[in-house]
Amino acid sequence: VTDWFACNELVEQFAISDRGFHYGDGLFETIAIRDGEARLWPLHMDRLASGCETLNITMPAQDSLLHGAMHAVRHSGISADSCLLKIVVSAGSGARGYGRATVDTPSILFGVSPWLSPPIEFYRDGIETVLCRTRLAINSATAGLKTLNRLEQVLARSEFNASNIYEGLTMDADDDVICGTMSNVFFVKDKTILTPSLDRCGVAGVMRRHVLATLDAVGKEVVIQGVRVAELSRVSEVFVSNSQFGILPVTRCAEHAWDVGAVTREIMDIMANNGIAECRS
Amino acid sequence: VTDWFACNELVEQFAISDRGFHYGDGLFETIAIRDGEARLWPLHMDRLASGCETLNITMPAQDSLLHGAMHAVRHSGISADSCLLKIVVSAGSGARGYGRATVDTPSILFGVSPWLSPPIEFYRDGIETVLCRTRLAINSATAGLKTLNRLEQVLARSEFNASNIYEGLTMDADDDVICGTMSNVFFVKDKTILTPSLDRCGVAGVMRRHVLATLDAVGKEVVIQGVRVAELSRVSEVFVSNSQFGILPVTRCAEHAWDVGAVTREIMDIMANNGIAECRS
Repeated sequence: VTDWFACNELVEQFAISDRGFHYGDGLFETIAIRDGEARLWPLHMDRLASGCETLNITMPAQDSLLHGAMHAVRHSGISADSCLLKIVVSAGSGARGYGRATVDTPSILFGVSPWLSPPIEFYRDGIETVLCRTRLAINSATAGLKTLNRLEQVLARSEFNASNIYEGLTMDADDDVICGTMSNVFFVKDKTILTPSLDRCGVAGVMRRHVLATLDAVGKEVVIQGVRVAELSRVSEVFVSNSQFGILPVTRCAEHAWDVGAVTREIMDIMANNGIAECRS
Repeated sequence: VTDWFACNELVEQFAISDRGFHYGDGLFETIAIRDGEARLWPLHMDRLASGCETLNITMPAQDSLLHGAMHAVRHSGISADSCLLKIVVSAGSGARGYGRATVDTPSILFGVSPWLSPPIEFYRDGIETVLCRTRLAINSATAGLKTLNRLEQVLARSEFNASNIYEGLTMDADDDVICGTMSNVFFVKDKTILTPSLDRCGVAGVMRRHVLATLDAVGKEVVIQGVRVAELSRVSEVFVSNSQFGILPVTRCAEHAWDVGAVTREIMDIMANNGIAECRS
């Protein structure tokens, strides 16, 4: 269950004319709250600001967002030690029709949900994934952004339901593996760390960016380059990242199997030492 | 202003956990009500059923949709002689996360808005359009459907605001002109009538389908084939269709200009004789 807040009030409903509902005209961030702090807050704010710029929505002041977020966390029935915070910024109520001017005062909602950790074995032994049939459309005008248009992820994530499958990897129409339904993906191939470009489709995850920055700081190169589905058999390690779980090794996707490799273990240790404690293996 | 109804009650708000809001997990139809009748109702129901199938939502019974729609029209403050009806079918409230099972009882909303005709001169003299910078992503999993994921249309339609511009034409990433922001497009080239395929992106409009069926019935061939933007100068006539306005001739797009041609006039007459009275030129 999620407790929702708007204007510092607990709410259960919102305006039926909201453009977020009718067109998906808005953005969201899902943020890990750990020990009362909003983890990777500046990176979440950066992505939200990029989204606002593309959608022509005036980015809300970051301090008022943080204030509203922390009010919601404190007034929810959920412990601020560990919970999930969702911030939705939508274009708000509007007249009929797709077109609109700049939105200066977007609707802002804060949702607080219980923390749901993957089992500890997933970090140690890795996760199994499927290869989703649902493809990501190419050259999306909102590629990389976390907009309220998420039908591709809904369709892809709804393809699997087995308890031993934790994630699905999605391809674009050119057979490039782009990301998971709720995560970004990294590959180790010929000792090189690769992660796909998100310029044409997919969501540029905040944890992905934190991984890239952290590895850059310790002198480890990551090449922004995709892997075709046909190349999966030539990859030696796979892992996925997201802002809640950090990093999880992937040991299976469709007919391909991998061990939890040394590179993944080392990166998880590095991330654990840079604020993502649950990566401690 | 739109009057909204759910379960035969006038409503102003809806559940904040609705998946339509969070993911655009739903569909809609905008239907012309003329003389108390829902125009092209079977075609709207057909497209809605296709969308429900793709989104794994159980299609509501058509007679209950029609009953709810007509109840909304009667109880709105707007005349049933001419008004616009919007039906929204969303996946409804759900738990966190993209994945879900089949939705057997979707949320259903009916919105009634005033009829807004284009001026009579638009039918006689044609409309001016722009060529939108926002591109349609290719190979969308929901190509052709009218889902609640409409950010491409929002971005494209928000590019223009001049009173003399009634519509914008949108291209996909391959420079093919696909449709308008709220309409479908037809071209006359070398005396052949063309309309783009909507298998990779765009919305397959109900009026487009009615035009295709009507022309087929009178023995006029329409070729499902796109026009590259570079070919616009070699096109002799352009017109757009949508379920509200019927057909409007296009006399300008970017630097290209066309007369209102004889083929367009003839098709408008044919459509006027097949239930779309406003096409009478």
